[in-house]
Amino acid sequence: MSRRLVVALSGGVGGAKLALGLSRVLPADELLVVANTGDDFEHLGLSISPDIDTLTYVLAEIDNPATGWGRRDETWSFMDSIGALGGEDWFRLGDRDLALHVERTRRLRLGQTLSEVTSDICRRLGIGARLVPMSDDRVRTRVRGDAGWIDFQDYFVRRQCRPVVHELAFDGVMRARPQDDILAALRSGDVRAVVICPSNPFISIEPILAIPGMREAIKASGAPVVAISPIIGGKAVKGPIAKMMRELGHEASAAGVAARYGDLLDGYVVDHADADRVGTVGARVTIARTLMTSLHDRETLARVTLDAADALASLQ
Amino acid sequence: MSRRLVVALSGGVGGAKLALGLSRVLPADELLVVANTGDDFEHLGLSISPDIDTLTYVLAEIDNPATGWGRRDETWSFMDSIGALGGEDWFRLGDRDLALHVERTRRLRLGQTLSEVTSDICRRLGIGARLVPMSDDRVRTRVRGDAGWIDFQDYFVRRQCRPVVHELAFDGVMRARPQDDILAALRSGDVRAVVICPSNPFISIEPILAIPGMREAIKASGAPVVAISPIIGGKAVKGPIAKMMRELGHEASAAGVAARYGDLLDGYVVDHADADRVGTVGARVTIARTLMTSLHDRETLARVTLDAADALASLQ
Repeated sequence: MSRRLVVALSGGVGGAKLALGLSRVLPADELLVVANTGDDFEHLGLSISPDIDTLTYVLAEIDNPATGWGRRDETWSFMDSIGALGGEDWFRLGDRDLALHVERTRRLRLGQTLSEVTSDICRRLGIGARLVPMSDDRVRTRVRGDAGWIDFQDYFVRRQCRPVVHELAFDGVMRARPQDDILAALRSGDVRAVVICPSNPFISIEPILAIPGMREAIKASGAPVVAISPIIGGKAVKGPIAKMMRELGHEASAAGVAARYGDLLDGYVVDHADADRVGTVGARVTIARTLMTSLHDRETLARVTLDAADALASLQ
Repeated sequence: MSRRLVVALSGGVGGAKLALGLSRVLPADELLVVANTGDDFEHLGLSISPDIDTLTYVLAEIDNPATGWGRRDETWSFMDSIGALGGEDWFRLGDRDLALHVERTRRLRLGQTLSEVTSDICRRLGIGARLVPMSDDRVRTRVRGDAGWIDFQDYFVRRQCRPVVHELAFDGVMRARPQDDILAALRSGDVRAVVICPSNPFISIEPILAIPGMREAIKASGAPVVAISPIIGGKAVKGPIAKMMRELGHEASAAGVAARYGDLLDGYVVDHADADRVGTVGARVTIARTLMTSLHDRETLARVTLDAADALASLQ
């Protein structure tokens, strides 16, 4: 019997698009989506997990397609009111979105793990695939700019990625353990592919890979590791990837992203726009359309990625 | 120089109407509104103070006149969403209203007192009069029905006052201290009147009076104590007062309310509808229109109440 399980590592917006594609072309019990939690933070007394939130809304198909984050049919009365009361309003929390943060915070305070809360909420929203945080332990991405270390959301949202990034750190990561289901899956001998979604390598994927034991478990799973480039034609589809790569001394290109993953990669899916310049990246390259505009694009790229993984497996 | 300060004891809806009237006929520094906090509770991980909330919204004139509680121009997206996530949705929290609960909860967790939070929020909303909780210590009203003791909001909102009330208790009240500003005001020698707003005596006013030292401090202030009947023509304007009075073995009437306050009262303002039946209540009775439909009604009743207090003071 062939291996069945697909483990997808993902950040928010771009990664979530592929995760949705995977969830639509795979049976529910064959997909485990691993969410970065390095972006998590406490705001207004609430526990916010931006990548889990985005993945939850996208997988439940209640996301806001215009923004890529948050919920559709959103209202903003809470935001309109909090500033007048002296609350911070630089991080936009929609009224519907807020329900998730309030309910998550309440349950975490009762002693539930982030995994338990996430799993239950996914079930209630009708999400078939499993979505898990990379760890139930606290990891916090920090950014060193010209003015010293700042919290990730301070950099990302409040300062809108304007500071030059000199260094990144994942506070707490050395004490973090991979979430149980991830290790169980990777050790099951049943992993068909590990997919690295088209997310920002520095801030979405590397926090996951930095958890002690994660990289080794992926390697030891025996499954092909296939990444999809988040760079198309030398530019980021969304977010600060290209700017951040240059600031950190890397080439802002599909090849630069692949170099960042190093020998973890077996396969690499890049856009037609980068076909001529990806060069040798130490992984088998698949050329495809990687821009996901429609639902059909998401499903197609998911199939291309799985085909690439299956082709690699047949070579082993 | 004559005494200037008016101390008003209030619950939510009915009391807040008079508090607004008082705030509009008095200079800002001459009114101290004391809010019942026996109704306070923790819900969805948030610290909710229903009477402070209502008083805040009414005094800031951003209340919802249709309901008597909550904010005007409210939206309900949070409520629409929380149930689907497994959160409790029996207590209606509007999106704008939620901003107050989230911000209060955040600040209380940082170690601010309820007084500090309330005072700052009132200032930000442009409320001139001082609004203080009866105590910064935790007091929780509990209700004994046929099935035993239940929390107040469980009785009041979730069960919509349906259980027969056999007994009330104010958990924590014996360890509670009156809020500092209240004692300072009552001891200042400058109190013109203590006004007991037309609130439910059992659940809105008695928690305040039950705090050790509160009743004595009111007595010792030397100011006339004037209550306004929350009963008009033998019926409650709003809420479960009449039902509760009968269940607790009292006469559901203006006279029954006065009897409940006993010798604390110097003056009592009752509606024309009760003029013939109020009888002897151990306080000087003033007959007035007590139904507050318009803003003008609120201001007029405030003036009538202050006039009654001033007349009592001139007799002393």
